[in-house]
Order: sequence, then C-alpha cells, then structure tokens
Amino acid sequence: MADKPDKTNKLKARLPRGFADRGGAEIAAMRRMLDKIRAVYERYGFEPLETPAVEYTDALGKFLPDQDRPNEGVFSLQDDDEQWLSLRYDLTAPLARYVAENFESLPKPYRSYREGWVFRNEKPGPGRFRQFMQFDADTVSSASMAADAEMCMMAADTMEALGLQGQYIVKVNNRKVLDGVLESIGLSGEANAGKRLTVLRAIDKYDRLERRGVEQLLGAGRKDESGDFTPGAKLDPPQIKSVLDYVEARLDEQIGDVETIFNDWSRAVGSSSVGARGITELAEIAGICGSAGYGPTRVSFDSSVVRGLEYYTGPVYEVDLTFETKDEHGRPVHFGSIGGGGRYDGLIARFRGEAVPATGFSIGVSRLMAALQHLGKVESKPEPGPVVVTVFDKERIADYQRMVTKLRNAEYAPGQKIRAELYLGEGKFAAQMKYADKRGSPCVVIQGGNEKAKGEIQVKDLILGAETAGMSKDREDYLKKQAQAQFAVPEDKLIEAVREVLARHDVKWS
Amino acid sequence: MADKPDKTNKLKARLPRGFADRGGAEIAAMRRMLDKIRAVYERYGFEPLETPAVEYTDALGKFLPDQDRPNEGVFSLQDDDEQWLSLRYDLTAPLARYVAENFESLPKPYRSYREGWVFRNEKPGPGRFRQFMQFDADTVSSASMAADAEMCMMAADTMEALGLQGQYIVKVNNRKVLDGVLESIGLSGEANAGKRLTVLRAIDKYDRLERRGVEQLLGAGRKDESGDFTPGAKLDPPQIKSVLDYVEARLDEQIGDVETIFNDWSRAVGSSSVGARGITELAEIAGICGSAGYGPTRVSFDSSVVRGLEYYTGPVYEVDLTFETKDEHGRPVHFGSIGGGGRYDGLIARFRGEAVPATGFSIGVSRLMAALQHLGKVESKPEPGPVVVTVFDKERIADYQRMVTKLRNAEYAPGQKIRAELYLGEGKFAAQMKYADKRGSPCVVIQGGNEKAKGEIQVKDLILGAETAGMSKDREDYLKKQAQAQFAVPEDKLIEAVREVLARHDVKWS
Repeated sequence: MADKPDKTNKLKARLPRGFADRGGAEIAAMRRMLDKIRAVYERYGFEPLETPAVEYTDALGKFLPDQDRPNEGVFSLQDDDEQWLSLRYDLTAPLARYVAENFESLPKPYRSYREGWVFRNEKPGPGRFRQFMQFDADTVSSASMAADAEMCMMAADTMEALGLQGQYIVKVNNRKVLDGVLESIGLSGEANAGKRLTVLRAIDKYDRLERRGVEQLLGAGRKDESGDFTPGAKLDPPQIKSVLDYVEARLDEQIGDVETIFNDWSRAVGSSSVGARGITELAEIAGICGSAGYGPTRVSFDSSVVRGLEYYTGPVYEVDLTFETKDEHGRPVHFGSIGGGGRYDGLIARFRGEAVPATGFSIGVSRLMAALQHLGKVESKPEPGPVVVTVFDKERIADYQRMVTKLRNAEYAPGQKIRAELYLGEGKFAAQMKYADKRGSPCVVIQGGNEKAKGEIQVKDLILGAETAGMSKDREDYLKKQAQAQFAVPEDKLIEAVREVLARHDVKWS
Repeated sequence: MADKPDKTNKLKARLPRGFADRGGAEIAAMRRMLDKIRAVYERYGFEPLETPAVEYTDALGKFLPDQDRPNEGVFSLQDDDEQWLSLRYDLTAPLARYVAENFESLPKPYRSYREGWVFRNEKPGPGRFRQFMQFDADTVSSASMAADAEMCMMAADTMEALGLQGQYIVKVNNRKVLDGVLESIGLSGEANAGKRLTVLRAIDKYDRLERRGVEQLLGAGRKDESGDFTPGAKLDPPQIKSVLDYVEARLDEQIGDVETIFNDWSRAVGSSSVGARGITELAEIAGICGSAGYGPTRVSFDSSVVRGLEYYTGPVYEVDLTFETKDEHGRPVHFGSIGGGGRYDGLIARFRGEAVPATGFSIGVSRLMAALQHLGKVESKPEPGPVVVTVFDKERIADYQRMVTKLRNAEYAPGQKIRAELYLGEGKFAAQMKYADKRGSPCVVIQGGNEKAKGEIQVKDLILGAETAGMSKDREDYLKKQAQAQFAVPEDKLIEAVREVLARHDVKWS
C-alpha cells in the first residue's frame, strides 16, 4: 500500500461558479463571428482600442443596472498601496477613462470599437456568466443624432453580416421622451430621481413580466415566484395608467408609420419641453435611417425600450432577435435582446468636469453566439485533426519524426501546409488508431518492420475506412474501397499519398 | 461663476501602474503576429483551448519564480462564499486544472495551445507589466522525449514564421542533469531542497550577473546596486567551483558537437544516476531534432538554462533572441529570452493523486512583439482611415448619410468594401479637413450648395493633396496634380471617383 499515491489529500479540480472553459470548435466559431462584426465596424470607420481588465474602482464608478446592491456586481481588491482596483464590468466605463486621459490627442469625434472580457460578481445562472465577452462601439464628442442613427444602422448591418436578415429588429427610444412622460405625471425634479429610475426599470421589464407585472412594479411592488419582493414606484392609479398607455402605444404600431407613433408620444409627453425635444431627436434619427434605406423593418421606434443603465441621457436602442424559440415550459418566446446602448453625455464629465457628448452600442457576444447556434448558423463540424504518424518501433522515433516534419513542410493546397503529428503516447497500435479517430484525423501513416524492409509506407484513410466498416462484405465495391482505404507507397511518395487522401475527402484546415 | 462646471471634484483619469491601453496599430500588429504563431501550432496538431481569467486560488497554487514572497505575485479576492479567487498568473496552472477536470474525455496525449492575458501583482517597471499576454502550448500525458523535442522544433518554426531566421536559438537543458551535478556535490535529499532551488535560481541569473554575481549567490549572498541583499546558497568553495565549471562548460561549445557537451556533463554529474538519466534524455532530444533537420544552429544544449519555476522535472528549454541591442549605458547586449518551458510531470498530480507526464512551452507575447518592433519586422504604418463625407449644410445630413451608405456598400476590390463615414462633429470645413487628415483618410467627399445645384460632388484626394502642397508652384505638373487632387463628378459617379483615388494610391484596408 505504501507505494500507492496518496489520493486523500488531492485538490478538487473545478472552476468557480459562473466561469467556463471553451474548446476548439467554440473558439473557432467565436473567432469567425468576431471577424464579421469587426469588418462591419471598420467599414463604418471605427478604430480598435483595447483597455486592460483592471482599473481603479473609482475610475470605473458603479454604473450597473442593479442599484439596489451597489457594492455587489463588481470584483474588487486592494492594491498594495491600499487603493481599490476592480475588474471592468463593461467596456463603457473604461472608455470614458481612456477618452478623458487622452482627450487632447484623440481625433474628435473619436470612434472606437472594443472587444473583450468583462466580469460581473453576480449570481450566475443558465447562460449567465461572471466572465463574458462584450463587443462595443462608441462615438465620443459628437452631439449629432447622426451618430446615434449610425449606431442603429451599424447594428442592423452587423446582424445581416451574420446572416440574420429578417430575424432582428433595432428598436429605438429616447430617455428624454420617457422623462417627458414622467414630467407630465408630476415626477420631475431632483426629489423624484429615485422614483423615476424605479419606473424606468419597471418599464424595462415589460417584455418579460407583461402588463400585470409592470403594473405591480409601478404601484406597491411585486412578489416573484421565489417569494422575493421588489418594492414598487408607488405611483397612483392615474399615473400608472398614463405610463402603461404610453408603453403600450407602440404595440400595434411597432412596424408602422413613424409619424403616427411620434404623434401618440407627443400626446403622452403633454407640455413637457424635454419630451418634445426627445421626439424631435427621434424624428431626426428616423429621417437619417429612412433616407439611407434602413426603414421600419430594420430600425423601428418602440416605447418599451428603456435600457437599465442610469447614465443614458438621450436616444437608447436595442437589438432584438425576433425569431421564436421555446421557454422551459415549451411555450414559444422571442429570443430577445442581444445588445443595446444609447447616448450618455454625462459619463466622461466625471473626469473632465464638462459634458462630453457620446453614444455607444454594446453586443453581448455570448448571447449572440447562442442565437446563431440556435439557428444553425454556426459551423458546428470540428476542424479535421492532423495526419498522425504512428509509432511501430520505439527505437525508430527519429525516423517517424522525420516523416512528420516532411509532412508539416509540405503544402496540400497553395499556401496551405499539412497538419501532422507524431503519436506521443505509450499505446499499442489499436490505441494509436483510437487516438487518431478521437482527433478526427483524415489518415494515419504506418511503417512497421516489413514496410521498412521494403522501403514502403502504409497510408490508412480513416474517413474511407469508417465508410467501409459499414458496408456489406461480399461486394466488389467493398474490396475496391478497402484497397483505397489502406495502401502502400514507396517512402519517397509519402507526401503525394497523403495529398491524395486529403483531396479525396476535400479536407481543408482553416 | 455659478454656471461654470465644478472642476474641483473631478476624478483623475488614470490607470493603475503596470496596466496599459493599446491602440489600433498595436492591436493590428499583435493580431498578425498571433495569427502566425497559431498557424504553426495548428500545423503541429495543437488544438485551441481557453480558460477563464479567474480560478480558485488553491487550484492555481503558487508556482511563481519569486518564492521569497509567496503571498505576493497574485491578485486575489474573496468570493461571497469566503473562498479565495485569483486572477491567473500563467496559462499552465489553469491547464493543469482543466486537464484534471476533464481527464477522462480528453484524447491522450492531449495537445492544446492557449493564448490569453495573465496577471502578476508585482512591481511594474519598463517593459514589465502587471497584465500581459502569454501564448502557450502543452502536451499532456506523454512521457516521451519526442514531446519535448517537438516543443523545441515548434519554437524554432515559430521564430522562423515571424521572420527571425538566424536570429534566435532554442537552448535546452535538463533539471535531472542539474540535480545530478548537485547530487555529486552532496546536495541531494529532501533536507537540501531549499538549497537546491537557491542554486538553480543563481545559475538562472548567469547571463545577467555573470560569473562574479553567480559566485556570490552560490556563496554568502549578493548585494545589488540598490543595496538590496539576496542571501546565497552558502556552498563551500569546492562546491561553488563544481557548479561554475558545469555552467561554464557550455560557453565555448554552445553551437558545437553535442557529443562533446554531453561528455563534459557526464563528468560533471559523476556517479549520479539521475544525472545520467538526464543526459540520456537530452541525447534522445538531440537525436530527434537533428534527424528532423533542427541542428545546433537552431536547437542547442546549454547548461546555463534553468528556468525559474520549481515544478520542472526534466528537460527545460528557452528561446533566446541572439541579435544585439544596446542597454541603458549604450553597451551591446543580447535581446535575450522571449519564452521557455519544460517538463512538469508532477503538476497535474496535485489534482489526480498520480503523476501525469506533461511538457509545455510559453511565449511572452509582449516581449516578442517588442523584439519584432526593434527589428523593424512589424508593419508600423497605421491602417488608412475611412473616406470622410463632409457636412456643408446641416439640414442635408440625411443626404450626406446616404452617400456614406452608398460608399460602404460598394466594393473597391473583389470582396472588399469601402470604409466610409459621415463627419459627426460640429466643426466647420477647415476642422473637418483637419479631422480627415488626423484619421489618415485617403479622400474626402464634399457637396456644398453650388455642387448640389449642378448635381455634382467634389472629391478631394488628400494623399495627392499633401504631395502637391510641397511642390514648387510654377510648374505644369503642379497644376495637373492639383486638378487630380480635387475634382468634380456627377452625383451618380461618386463610387467610381472614390475608387479611382483609392486605386491611384493603392489604398487597401485589412
């Protein structure tokens, strides 16, 4: 017993909840998706920027949707000089820091895109991670509604570049219109700021909680299925009716005449001047998008779009995937939002002491990838594995390695070299074949003593081999295929033989 | 004064020390470099894997070179269930966790490569960051020296794929040989483990501190220029001499006959059986590499290579860039190591309770990029900026946007669309031209009232314009170029005109 390793003290290999590993197929699919997004953003004149994962906590600020627990949501730690550092929780707060730090040297307007991991110290759940990827674009130092319109058109073009024609809609609203509605029911002024935010967050949940749930959140509050109680905005019934009338005005008109929608909203904001300004801004966006060919089937206006973040000051927008999927009870539901953004004229002011107009759009990369997978728009076939040179005789490792090197230096298509490896394990021939199968190798190379004596090499075509295995055995075709599936060639014809197998099955590595 | 924004309370926009932002040119250069490394690794049969930035602290362990301050080096924080989390400080410890967690389902040997940010809570300095990128490859579940040989050949191929032919050397040693030398001077056994590590770390500093410094670190200790004292291994003079003889044996023989080197080392390890095994392993690596064409000018054997990490159990290797550069005093120095690795048969055992043989190689991406930049092997010209459509008449924003959209949807080469944008700022014409210059735009598009009336658009070629600006003004050629540099076209010929300007200067976006 003494020579058995001590297994009692061993560590458990596991990840903290909400963190995940990603394998080859997922990484490749993600890379292809990001390349497509990047191409659209660069065509729109946005330049890449990268900021680190760690920032000073005070520089990031706390701009997370969940204001009820302001100390949660962010991973923070103290530096050796006692200053607090945090992992970035989005890509907007670091951009604000970057722009403020480099304001004088940047071209203005400054257009940047950023892709990267962000971290949220929140309760993880299905499809809800504590580390996830965002892809953002922002235009800083432009107060023009053309900048917001451009974000909406770019979002639409991005969805179409990913093959989602007709399966998405960019929905636009304006915080100023919402403010106007709230002003018209007596909720303006600093004293009502908290209440306004509660109302916005209630409206934001309309798609999920529907009229009944939002009504509760606008009133006394709502108890969810788990028994948790969310306090409401405590509006009175006429106020609640006004808010719901405004929100529901959009329902039948979503893809309708923008004039009609804007007229409805004008009534809802009453005499509020900020509300009127909001509608003028939206009309500008509608004009620019419409003129450029991005009509209401691509960019629409929708009063239920709020976006949870407190810092938005003007237009807000979100991209919804409109195709249906099933919820856990088998009921059809829309896939929903995969990204959004809006104008935040005050965020950079925290550093500059003066407002810097800015607008930006963020894609939830993992969620978008999940949607593409759901629609079968992601290549799910893994890459072909490498050609495996098997080891028959351990004394001849150097010979086998030389074959591998010859293969790796040979092209199978112009500019494309063969992927190859030496089997590095301890297994006998059967284990080596199993390994090659598991790797998805197109073929293996074999040279035992007999072959060596004849100056030959055997090439075994694993793809054809798998086909042959399923065939009835008494046919000429079977014999022919079997002969093709494993054949001998002179040593100096190895490359040609492997190329032939690769061409036979149109094997291509990326 | 009251309406001036309050600048006294504003936050300072800055990054914590040791963290950095990266702009467009750097991101593009990095992407090209990573693509090349990835292509080599995939040709060698390695598959991509990605693990998160955060792990349980105990799963990572503490395997940093600086053992004197075991609590430093790692960014850690407590999760809400009181468990300690850390930012990964390398890509090897997370791989060990991943392999242990997924051991049964992985093909074995398991070959993976990983690229990603790692974090070190260390004192930052010039070229020394607290967040930096590593690019690793590892073969797990192979005890074969062919796996180590492959790492060395792959490192060589990677350097050559990056254009560093003749400017690098892969240097190989074996911890077992070092252990043999130490055994031969009476430093074997558990009781001497600490002393052995001190000796290894002293040898590791030979290239920087030279004989004198290493001698001190092997003896009583060494005081550096800043007055900091590092305690030594306290060997006696004959022991010190043996160690230095072994280390310096390589100096004249580095690119020499491997037989001679191995004979010298055999003498140095005396009767130590572990030392002899180490030399046999190295001879195997030399045989495989040599037979595959990776001779001593690419893969060499060098007794000064130690690698600082405690967990190496066999061959260790590092890639040195051999070209000279200047130090801060103007003296020529070698650029030095940009990566390394070795065999670590015990690391995964922490989870599995049984040894899992593994070997891996890590590139310091930022340092490698710095080397390529130093050699002028990195495209330093920034990408061309977008075509900028200027705004003459704010009422006609929608018209201008339509031109932008037309440009963006047009190809300038097969499959390549034009990058274009609308000027989104408040500036007048001069400011717009300055903006386009700053963005590096090839041309701008202009339509004022006069042009509009004639149904025309002006295209201004900024590249030619810049050339014309430097020419003497009394020549026919000047006038011709000036006419080419700004010209009018009918509205429906906009795309053709822009294409002509792009073709004129061979403008290509990536």
